[in-house]
Amino acid sequence: MYHETILTVRYVETDKFGIAHHSNHIIWFEVARTSLLRDIGLPYSEMEAQGVSCPLLETYCRYGHPARFEDRLIVRTSIAEMSPVKIRFSYEIVEAEQGYTVACGQTLHAFVDAASGRPVRLNRFRPEMWGELVQRSRPYFAGIGGQ
Amino acid sequence: MYHETILTVRYVETDKFGIAHHSNHIIWFEVARTSLLRDIGLPYSEMEAQGVSCPLLETYCRYGHPARFEDRLIVRTSIAEMSPVKIRFSYEIVEAEQGYTVACGQTLHAFVDAASGRPVRLNRFRPEMWGELVQRSRPYFAGIGGQ
Amino acid sequence: MYHETILTVRYVETDKFGIAHHSNHIIWFEVARTSLLRDIGLPYSEMEAQGVSCPLLETYCRYGHPARFEDRLIVRTSIAEMSPVKIRFSYEIVEAEQGYTVACGQTLHAFVDAASGRPVRLNRFRPEMWGELVQRSRPYFAGIGGQ
Amino acid sequence: MYHETILTVRYVETDKFGIAHHSNHIIWFEVARTSLLRDIGLPYSEMEAQGVSCPLLETYCRYGHPARFEDRLIVRTSIAEMSPVKIRFSYEIVEAEQGYTVACGQTLHAFVDAASGRPVRLNRFRPEMWGELVQRSRPYFAGIGGQ
Repeated sequence: MYHETILTVRYVETDKFGIAHHSNHIIWFEVARTSLLRDIGLPYSEMEAQGVSCPLLETYCRYGHPARFEDRLIVRTSIAEMSPVKIRFSYEIVEAEQGYTVACGQTLHAFVDAASGRPVRLNRFRPEMWGELVQRSRPYFAGIGGQ
Repeated sequence: MYHETILTVRYVETDKFGIAHHSNHIIWFEVARTSLLRDIGLPYSEMEAQGVSCPLLETYCRYGHPARFEDRLIVRTSIAEMSPVKIRFSYEIVEAEQGYTVACGQTLHAFVDAASGRPVRLNRFRPEMWGELVQRSRPYFAGIGGQ
Repeated sequence: MYHETILTVRYVETDKFGIAHHSNHIIWFEVARTSLLRDIGLPYSEMEAQGVSCPLLETYCRYGHPARFEDRLIVRTSIAEMSPVKIRFSYEIVEAEQGYTVACGQTLHAFVDAASGRPVRLNRFRPEMWGELVQRSRPYFAGIGGQ
Repeated sequence: MYHETILTVRYVETDKFGIAHHSNHIIWFEVARTSLLRDIGLPYSEMEAQGVSCPLLETYCRYGHPARFEDRLIVRTSIAEMSPVKIRFSYEIVEAEQGYTVACGQTLHAFVDAASGRPVRLNRFRPEMWGELVQRSRPYFAGIGGQ
């Protein structure tokens, strides 16, 4: 299953070729990811308030049909992989009217102690947050990594 | 009266001071303005398809309370001034929960022939578009310029 | 007199009208302002390290000739007004080859205690920084406010 | 061998975690790529003027050491793969003072007829441009794909 976020392409997001610039897809992934976390009751701002950050380790995007100004886009987000040390989100962006695929991609994140910047095992560092994350994100993931 | 657009502050829009960077307010003005035009049935993409562009001549913004990540913002947009050669939008951005003012501002635009880049009198260049604009935007303006 | 910063218009900065989107001018103002402060030996990162921030109170920009992809731009920055509580920068952006004016603008900033977010009188809060700022920025200002 | 582009991290590029937001690395790749093309005498604006566009098919970035405000970065760009239908650039971003790696990545582009948006074989569509590209980019590539 996947989570859905709806976006409208902004004028500022277009480029001189007349389409949404490819850097925006990376930003839309983030909008979708933070929206998923907010919807499961673990908003990213709360995670940061508890001293946990999720910096990006890797991002990948494959571009399909161009997105244009005022296109309505649906970002379908799922959790491709999760362990106490990292989480991988998977995204598909489709145009809402015609349904064509605008982009697919993935982002891989570490769990990090926001104070020190060091990687942590979330199940030891914030056991309660880890428990909530596993439980609440279940509808959106395809598999959970080992330890 | 004013038109309302609702936005959520994106992570990418924050800066190292922890608040939404001041350049985003200019972008939110644009999101609100294009949303107003879309809602009155004159989407900016349609105006461009008919060869009319509305480049910015001036922008002004006064900043109030900082906006933070995941804040929900309401942009209240009205038309402060309109004539066949230019249009001035007025904006107020308020935080949705507490109601404090995040920013106020204005943007002034010319009507331009998109092909030549030259200013036009919209009532002569595209009389029908001008008529529709005057009629449909009426709920949102405070005054209309002479000619 | 003014300080000069040179920029090249990035592809991502263009929009579907084929010109640099108007929000970038606000960002270029910031690039120029931080460059001026760095060049006088008071980099913004150092000011923040000493607990001082300079949030924007107001910004204004008047747009002239469009800037296009790969245009080289010169941002001429001066200090229009400075007092222990606020500083106003003035900018002119010109295209480097032909010399036409791309934009003019101003930004007004408060001096703020970064910890509390409260306005400060810089000459009392950080007398040494204030002294250095007054002395070193002298080549770039047109007038200095009272107190 | 690789081409070098030097950048300074802008304030607007930072996020509330205090580091350059990960979407900027994708933009810096583009700044570096267009700079390489400009330096070999085939500026992207000229390619577009001749009706050729190079839209992104894929992007990948692996993040290393965070980049901070005012860090000076060197983007080292090479051509990992080139054929008449596509070109793959490879990037390494290093911090200029300490030399640590900020990011590595790749972008894959198609050659496209800008008018129709259709993929082309550049050696047939614009034989002269293809010849120049092969010859002038030679210092920067590691291998050239077949036909």
